[in-house]
Amino acid sequence: MLPHPDLRINIDRLQQRLAELSDMGGIEGTTGSSRLAFTDADKAGRDLVVTWMTDLGLDVTVDGIGNVIGVWRPDGIDPSRVDAAPVMTGSHIDTVATGGRYDGNLGVLAGLEVIETLATAGVVPTRPLAVAFFSNEEGSRFPPDMMGSLVYVGGMGLEQAHNTVGIDGATVGQELDRIGYRGPAPCPGLVPHAFVELHIEQGPVLEEEGMQIGVVESVQGISWTEVTIEGQSNHAGTTPMRLRHDAGYAAASVAAYVRDMVTEIGHPQVGTVGMIDLHPNLVNVVAARAQLTVDLRNTDNEILVESEKRLQAHLDQLAADEGVAFSTRSLARFDPVQFDPAVVDTVEATANALGLSTLRMPSGAGHDAQMMARICPTAMIFTPSHKGISHNPAEHTDSVDLAAGANTLLQVVSILAS
Amino acid sequence: MLPHPDLRINIDRLQQRLAELSDMGGIEGTTGSSRLAFTDADKAGRDLVVTWMTDLGLDVTVDGIGNVIGVWRPDGIDPSRVDAAPVMTGSHIDTVATGGRYDGNLGVLAGLEVIETLATAGVVPTRPLAVAFFSNEEGSRFPPDMMGSLVYVGGMGLEQAHNTVGIDGATVGQELDRIGYRGPAPCPGLVPHAFVELHIEQGPVLEEEGMQIGVVESVQGISWTEVTIEGQSNHAGTTPMRLRHDAGYAAASVAAYVRDMVTEIGHPQVGTVGMIDLHPNLVNVVAARAQLTVDLRNTDNEILVESEKRLQAHLDQLAADEGVAFSTRSLARFDPVQFDPAVVDTVEATANALGLSTLRMPSGAGHDAQMMARICPTAMIFTPSHKGISHNPAEHTDSVDLAAGANTLLQVVSILAS
Repeated sequence: MLPHPDLRINIDRLQQRLAELSDMGGIEGTTGSSRLAFTDADKAGRDLVVTWMTDLGLDVTVDGIGNVIGVWRPDGIDPSRVDAAPVMTGSHIDTVATGGRYDGNLGVLAGLEVIETLATAGVVPTRPLAVAFFSNEEGSRFPPDMMGSLVYVGGMGLEQAHNTVGIDGATVGQELDRIGYRGPAPCPGLVPHAFVELHIEQGPVLEEEGMQIGVVESVQGISWTEVTIEGQSNHAGTTPMRLRHDAGYAAASVAAYVRDMVTEIGHPQVGTVGMIDLHPNLVNVVAARAQLTVDLRNTDNEILVESEKRLQAHLDQLAADEGVAFSTRSLARFDPVQFDPAVVDTVEATANALGLSTLRMPSGAGHDAQMMARICPTAMIFTPSHKGISHNPAEHTDSVDLAAGANTLLQVVSILAS
Repeated sequence: MLPHPDLRINIDRLQQRLAELSDMGGIEGTTGSSRLAFTDADKAGRDLVVTWMTDLGLDVTVDGIGNVIGVWRPDGIDPSRVDAAPVMTGSHIDTVATGGRYDGNLGVLAGLEVIETLATAGVVPTRPLAVAFFSNEEGSRFPPDMMGSLVYVGGMGLEQAHNTVGIDGATVGQELDRIGYRGPAPCPGLVPHAFVELHIEQGPVLEEEGMQIGVVESVQGISWTEVTIEGQSNHAGTTPMRLRHDAGYAAASVAAYVRDMVTEIGHPQVGTVGMIDLHPNLVNVVAARAQLTVDLRNTDNEILVESEKRLQAHLDQLAADEGVAFSTRSLARFDPVQFDPAVVDTVEATANALGLSTLRMPSGAGHDAQMMARICPTAMIFTPSHKGISHNPAEHTDSVDLAAGANTLLQVVSILAS
């Protein structure tokens, strides 16, 4: 069933490009990079990838939010199909402040590698292929994350995006102009025939399970809630337990409840209390005030909603029991995204035909593919992340796994284009 | 049974002195003060109280750590008893940075008020009376707290005390010289016949129970433990629950356990987790590291030791269950102190004879009296603290309660001196 059973990408060339790109904003003494969106380092990375696209003969366009699309329309393509919707792959090349070499970059450079491999082999696809890198996927400098792909699919207006103020006070519009990446291509952008994104897992599951390819069926829905607790400051020695209104205890109780609830709901529900701040935060003072965040995720929106309700019920009960006041604020709420079953099946069958072990799984992190899923059949391919480490210069994926992912992408793109 | 059934202290004079002393280091717009030990404000407070002592005809001595003792040997005292060990009362006049008007000051100025009342009435005690104010009870600038009384009873050497470096880099010795309060009186100091300290409760129990006088039988033992937890940082979305080693969850579990355990042990056991710090403390990152403090207190050392053991057992179990590493460090450990039963009975009987309601209770906070209990029969008298507020300019005790406490002190001191 493989369209090109003997064709393989050149892993050395892919590694070489990953290394060269990581030098843009490279973090001394590591393999990682710091390329926050629309910075000089991001511009340097963009320029490098655009040069590679141009060298490959792609038609490069830049849109109003700085998304870059390179379309491959090789000589010999059926003239009646030359303007057909392309099969698109890609990801992003911006990073968090302490980014690794693979997050985002792999999906973009593997896309170039797929095209170069096909071109070198003289393969002419039946419709154009495209490689995209979307702006500001990380959202570390300018919230929200996945901004470029969100604008691409029409989920956010260009003006709103341009007016976004970053952590350093600059706006997206100013910075796009400064680095020369406010382009003329329209937003929303062209609708691809299909979209497939190769990405590192950013989690430990594939490595833990000894699997080579993650067949990503969905992206978890995300619910972020900030919980503020008002109690009463008291002396830790002189205040009997029955007279306390302990915001610190209440915060701990919420965090412990989140774990209990999530364990009871079971996989794939996850829940995390990653931030707790007590005030005054002293050894011998009952905390007057506490703030914590609750991060709940599930691929099933009904269960996610149920977990949110149970959390609220616990807060209500605790408020009555401890005599504290809770207030909550939603920091983020995204419904789960289901990828296209046919594309998902294609990823799985292709990887298996290549002799690779596969695991169907949700993505726990957000990706550009979840935005593209709004406008075309979409799926994702995951490769293992060593120890699940990501957003860190120590991020690592073995060469054999990178090759496995890119070869799967090569065949899947070819199938989707045929 | 009251030695002077009709004698009462002058509450207006006592309030006037409390107000004048609170102006030394007074906090603008409040009734509170900031007189950290051995600062200029502390010197001003000391000078004022020494003036009052001298005006009352007391023999004032200053020892090597700056403790000030004023001894009243009125004319007419039996010549064979003039050098007898005095009945001593007193407390401290240093404050925390945001101190109230009554903490410490009440015990010292009520002592002066007792002597002035007796002197005015022409009462001649059968042995000398003394009023002390001990240096650096709060320990806010120079640890540990209760330093002056600790040195007075021989629990810490003068040299060690002098070499103590404060939060601002100065040493106790330098600062004593600077403010002129390194005196020639020996340390350890003279052993009183008995010691009684009047103090505000600094807790809500008396007010809550509607009682006027706290008969303090003991001081709770204190166990402070700093718990450090090493887990593993992970992505909150991509890491399944079973693969987590969540230091934040472990911290919350410890805090929740402390509450459960303390509730099960019951009164007077108290336990507080007042400080929790997570790292990196982000909404979508499983915490790699956490630190918290556990404050356990009980008047029964056996139960306190048992609670410490149960805490450690919980840490051991949690380390195994969650795959995290705990390390603990003792920040403070004081055994409980039992006051002299005869002096405690005297306080109770005296207050009742004055028509005051009484509650036997432990002290949840540390006091100079617990040091004095090492060398002579000792007890304490508590007056209510409005809402339990202390170490705060909003600290308040009603005038009628201040008078009730000082009048109880007057009679108790007289009984002990007879």
